[in-house]
Amino acid sequence: MMEKIDAHPIYIEPFHVDFTGRIFMGMLGNHLLNAAGNHSQRRGWGIGALNETRHTWVLSRLSIEMMDMPRQYEHCTITTWVESVMKLFTNRNFAILREDGTAMGYARSVWAMIDMETRRPCDLLSLYDGDILNYVVAPEENICPIEGHGRFRFRNAEFVRTIPTYYSDVDINGHINSIKYIEHILDLFPRETFEHGIRRFEIAYKAESYMGDTLSFFQQQNEDGTIDVEVRKNATEENPGEVVCQARLSIHHAEDGQQES
Amino acid sequence: MMEKIDAHPIYIEPFHVDFTGRIFMGMLGNHLLNAAGNHSQRRGWGIGALNETRHTWVLSRLSIEMMDMPRQYEHCTITTWVESVMKLFTNRNFAILREDGTAMGYARSVWAMIDMETRRPCDLLSLYDGDILNYVVAPEENICPIEGHGRFRFRNAEFVRTIPTYYSDVDINGHINSIKYIEHILDLFPRETFEHGIRRFEIAYKAESYMGDTLSFFQQQNEDGTIDVEVRKNATEENPGEVVCQARLSIHHAEDGQQES
Repeated sequence: MMEKIDAHPIYIEPFHVDFTGRIFMGMLGNHLLNAAGNHSQRRGWGIGALNETRHTWVLSRLSIEMMDMPRQYEHCTITTWVESVMKLFTNRNFAILREDGTAMGYARSVWAMIDMETRRPCDLLSLYDGDILNYVVAPEENICPIEGHGRFRFRNAEFVRTIPTYYSDVDINGHINSIKYIEHILDLFPRETFEHGIRRFEIAYKAESYMGDTLSFFQQQNEDGTIDVEVRKNATEENPGEVVCQARLSIHHAEDGQQES
Repeated sequence: MMEKIDAHPIYIEPFHVDFTGRIFMGMLGNHLLNAAGNHSQRRGWGIGALNETRHTWVLSRLSIEMMDMPRQYEHCTITTWVESVMKLFTNRNFAILREDGTAMGYARSVWAMIDMETRRPCDLLSLYDGDILNYVVAPEENICPIEGHGRFRFRNAEFVRTIPTYYSDVDINGHINSIKYIEHILDLFPRETFEHGIRRFEIAYKAESYMGDTLSFFQQQNEDGTIDVEVRKNATEENPGEVVCQARLSIHHAEDGQQES
């Protein structure tokens, strides 16, 4: 029986770090998705195998919480495993480890499986005779001491900007890629945000957008100090557009001290 | 004596390919720069060693010519070596090889060394007692059958667009990163350009720009079918701004046939 937890080594490349020398949150997200892809692939649940039966994974939620961020030239390891499987969703968790094995942070994600023709969700528990249940870790192995995904309530969000989407935003499926949303969302924030560092970043993917769509960004300051961002596509003065994704940021406070260079 | 040519393995990740399944030119550029960085590092000429003497490499030119582009999940190898060294510049070449060792394309680059205090170029031939000359390959090893860097002459360039620069554009030095210029330049082009595929991409870096600078893009169609792009920072109606970089694209013609999926 294959181990249930995989270790995915990462190396922090020079062009993948921000002006503070820490990895961009989007790049870290990219590494997490690669780790997830490899873990699935090795167990016969990768995109390649799924495409043969006209199924594919869709990322629904991603929450990353970092006590510290990997820095340029650092070698780290991402471990990943399946926490649980329900009919329409599966929870996958991650730990981001230093070379000495200590944790820098953790992440949670939620995935659905869809039928590529109908674009409708599939029953994970019946697909491949419920094989995915073989990969769910035991509770004592599921060490992911960060909060679950939050709920978004946009009440007083203010419009920040609209951006066009171009060639570089689009993935092999012709969709704006999930990592590019993270980049565009973080680009709303001033330099000081990244001097403090991001403690937690959450994103909920709601709908696809495509090359040529315009994305409008709305921002809301919450009472607990977090900041929410809503992204809508093709919004106009008359039409609120469609919600594409929603995100929440928590910034490190100076007194946290973990993010000092 | 250390070999003069290094082999740098690369793997084409899912989020690094465009809607055709081929690697983004910017991502390929990023891999080339990593290969260059590793090659220098192993020979005592890496950024780390140089920073101790307050020197750093500056990329001046990069020309990439591809018969075919690596595709999603492909394993390739980049080989790189020093072609020649002059007082103020060194030429570094690259080959991009398939798993079977055949070439998919080649690249040429020009680098200067600057003093980090004065920002002025250094004499490469005298630095470290001319040690860099030990790494110049013999002419018979310098297999890079692509044209040298061209010259730019902007005569009838038309303004296309101005974009702001944000957090994601900036590298650890606080400069807009060299790869991001490639992305922004390619974002000027329509979908059809990438359906044909890019045969050759050249860029000349002229000046640094910084987070918050606005970049204006001007485009010119040349008689030989190539397209030139000039990027200027902080241009206004009264002020032409400063040239930051210039690029040239050649697109595959349908009859080339190399880029069929």
